[in-house]
Amino acid sequence: MKLKVKNLNWMAGRPVAFLHEDTAKRINVFANDRLEIVKPKKVYAIVDIFSKVVKKNEIGISLELGKILKLKTGSNVEIKTSEISNATFLIRKKLSGKKLSQSELEFLISEIVHNNLSEAEIAYFTAAEKLRGMSKEEIINLTRAMVKTGVKLKFKGKFVVDKHCIGGIAGNRTTPLVVSICASQGLIFPKTSSRAITSAAGTADVIETLAKVELSIDEIKKVVKKTSACLAWGGSLGLAPSDDKIIRVERLLNLDIEAQLLASIMSKKIAAGAKYLLIDIPYGRGAKVPNLKKAKSLGKKFFKIAREFGLNLHIVYTDGSLPIGHGFGPVLEMLDILKVLRNEIDAPQDLRDKSIFLASEIFKMCKIKNPRKLAENALISGEAYQKFKEIVNAQNGSNNFERRVANLRLGRIRRTIYSKKSGRIKRVGNHEINSICRILGTPETATAGLKLHKKTGVVKKSDPLMTLYTESRNKLDDAIKFIKKNNPIIIA
Amino acid sequence: MKLKVKNLNWMAGRPVAFLHEDTAKRINVFANDRLEIVKPKKVYAIVDIFSKVVKKNEIGISLELGKILKLKTGSNVEIKTSEISNATFLIRKKLSGKKLSQSELEFLISEIVHNNLSEAEIAYFTAAEKLRGMSKEEIINLTRAMVKTGVKLKFKGKFVVDKHCIGGIAGNRTTPLVVSICASQGLIFPKTSSRAITSAAGTADVIETLAKVELSIDEIKKVVKKTSACLAWGGSLGLAPSDDKIIRVERLLNLDIEAQLLASIMSKKIAAGAKYLLIDIPYGRGAKVPNLKKAKSLGKKFFKIAREFGLNLHIVYTDGSLPIGHGFGPVLEMLDILKVLRNEIDAPQDLRDKSIFLASEIFKMCKIKNPRKLAENALISGEAYQKFKEIVNAQNGSNNFERRVANLRLGRIRRTIYSKKSGRIKRVGNHEINSICRILGTPETATAGLKLHKKTGVVKKSDPLMTLYTESRNKLDDAIKFIKKNNPIIIA
Repeated sequence: MKLKVKNLNWMAGRPVAFLHEDTAKRINVFANDRLEIVKPKKVYAIVDIFSKVVKKNEIGISLELGKILKLKTGSNVEIKTSEISNATFLIRKKLSGKKLSQSELEFLISEIVHNNLSEAEIAYFTAAEKLRGMSKEEIINLTRAMVKTGVKLKFKGKFVVDKHCIGGIAGNRTTPLVVSICASQGLIFPKTSSRAITSAAGTADVIETLAKVELSIDEIKKVVKKTSACLAWGGSLGLAPSDDKIIRVERLLNLDIEAQLLASIMSKKIAAGAKYLLIDIPYGRGAKVPNLKKAKSLGKKFFKIAREFGLNLHIVYTDGSLPIGHGFGPVLEMLDILKVLRNEIDAPQDLRDKSIFLASEIFKMCKIKNPRKLAENALISGEAYQKFKEIVNAQNGSNNFERRVANLRLGRIRRTIYSKKSGRIKRVGNHEINSICRILGTPETATAGLKLHKKTGVVKKSDPLMTLYTESRNKLDDAIKFIKKNNPIIIA
Repeated sequence: MKLKVKNLNWMAGRPVAFLHEDTAKRINVFANDRLEIVKPKKVYAIVDIFSKVVKKNEIGISLELGKILKLKTGSNVEIKTSEISNATFLIRKKLSGKKLSQSELEFLISEIVHNNLSEAEIAYFTAAEKLRGMSKEEIINLTRAMVKTGVKLKFKGKFVVDKHCIGGIAGNRTTPLVVSICASQGLIFPKTSSRAITSAAGTADVIETLAKVELSIDEIKKVVKKTSACLAWGGSLGLAPSDDKIIRVERLLNLDIEAQLLASIMSKKIAAGAKYLLIDIPYGRGAKVPNLKKAKSLGKKFFKIAREFGLNLHIVYTDGSLPIGHGFGPVLEMLDILKVLRNEIDAPQDLRDKSIFLASEIFKMCKIKNPRKLAENALISGEAYQKFKEIVNAQNGSNNFERRVANLRLGRIRRTIYSKKSGRIKRVGNHEINSICRILGTPETATAGLKLHKKTGVVKKSDPLMTLYTESRNKLDDAIKFIKKNNPIIIA
């Protein structure tokens, strides 16, 4: 059946299409069913029935579906009803504890990419991965499937490098610093990052406070050609596109699924075209990985996948027991980064130290001499800051760095929390800091988050511990309730 | 924040509300977030943002949400942003293999009832139930929570009876027959049934081809007072209302989860006010329960729950290796039922026999003499048919039985499948029959389904095996593809 596209400025949070009720009856679909758009490209959409907004010969397109379809109002599409995806049988198979083959995983992942599985079906798949586990072969095949169903980038140059940090540590926004340091010394660093999964903010959320991060492949290439680097959001590029859909579902419960974590990271890196990859696995109380032993066991699995795909991999295991930086939330983290780049006196020392360490490890991989000194000098000399400005300006296609920085602002609604007793800080919880930020509205609300006034040492009664920032009074109330229940800073 | 209700004739398949983008910004919610309607009652809704359809001071209400809210256009509602449900922590806890307490299960179920968990989150919960298992205490507490979060019915009379059959057998539409037989002999049989879970049709889907099944509590009471019985859909009554939401998610993968099955059946029966309950557990190849041993083990668990809630329970274990009846799908199954009630010569003998057996077991529970003869006579004499007519007319509030029967029709698009060889029928697959019907569009498309021409014995090459009925050419094609892949009738 042919229908005319009607693009609607309607955000549903997922790819949905409006049909007239007569049209729905004719092709025998019901609300919340899936519909297959056959031409001009194969895309699945969820059906809403709303006869007031579309005529019998029209299909109303939500913004999310419009982004995939990229068709003008009035264009023709050919649609048909979607049969129940065979991938549901594969999910049942995995739930029952059986292994999935390479071709089965490829089919499953391609159904996710084409929107032919609902979020609930993806939830079942990830639950099966978590509870049944995935074999080494399955993880490698999953990685392959995730790469294969997307775009693959290629960059010229010997030293095309990349880095990744297993999340879980609040703050820890080293990426913009490491990229700026390395690129300022001649390495090619086409960095694509994700948005937050379980934390207050992802690198893409933080960069977005200053720069456009939703770049096209061509834009990335231009930016990298001009500046040797980029700081883009990976989600809009179509690199391992199944990943974001899966992550969105995992995020509902803040689940960490090892197989999915391995495949997710490696597929993005392989698709992004790096030749040298540094992975940082922080461990410790409150980190995603509780101790060094587990960190090394995870590291081994990364090496197995890297070997399979011919990637040079180096792994560092770092202390992840404390949040890194002063601020948590997109804008707050960007302010920390700017302080480090500008060598300001109150720059977070831990963020600076870790960034220098990671940059020097990347230099080492590339056999560059005096790696540590080189990294530190790049910061002190301002070369890294200059590089960061170049990247931001190149991504914005405009020399507006200073103006964008001047416009950074924090949430209108603020509240400082004071210590109720004197004593020594025993622990600052990564999980709790991240949860508070999420309740305050991050990462969607870039101006939200929290700033720690102290992370270690002694505090006195009535000393300020943290300041909360948000745009919603309800969210502030919820965050304060949460803090009362789940003390994020233990003083003894 | 106060908004004015704008009811929209818009089906989204789930409770969704449209907000103007400025309103969404003001309260800091995003598409696909959840919103809490605080007044006049507490209900959660999913947010779509569509500024063209609602003004800043309005909230657009989907049909599904309207059914819950029951407010007129122009009424005021008080809304706020919904915090992340604490129930997600409980789902994580269950996924990690820990037990949930009575109060935890009550909170989780009440969050499901109030729409504060997404389908993906419910999927995670059911996956955890399936893969981690539920203890006896958890199942009892789950049952209790499911009863407590809904309405509870009470009926006068000593012999208030009920029946339930563990599904999985294609056809097997004994309920309307058993109810008509028993009620015609003086028992009180306020039967509420579900729609299909994994099969071609549920009893409610079949009854709906003739009678209104979405009755209010008051309507049920009136119908039962008038006829001693009813054949209503349980879903609209608010008996254990979490059940339908959970089933809808399980159905995506046709999952059978024992804990959920036990709690689902028992909570509905307890809430429906029965004092005597007959459960039929069919077993055998292709049934939900593969053998008598497993059937009895399941039976034991039912007895444990029944004891806890003071319910008189009797269980029969029946042969479930073959589909029962000739037709599969709502209208086709109704046609079979009518033939049995009218003592027609081509009535399906197996359906008739099983209904008489089940009715006589219920008579036995109630200490009624000559139970088998009584049941058979009720059919032969036409008393059961008369009772069925009364129930249908009472539910419709109109003496339109004959007219409704005359209007029954089957799918416009039909195809007969012929045997490719001669031989003896070895097996007719319940699963396959149900799958074919689902592909053809059942239960939503009541006129779809299939009719078997033969279930046992010898067939010759080119004999008709089955006729398919549907309203969609695509669905017919898909069904034929499925039949080619998964032979539903094995001839050897």
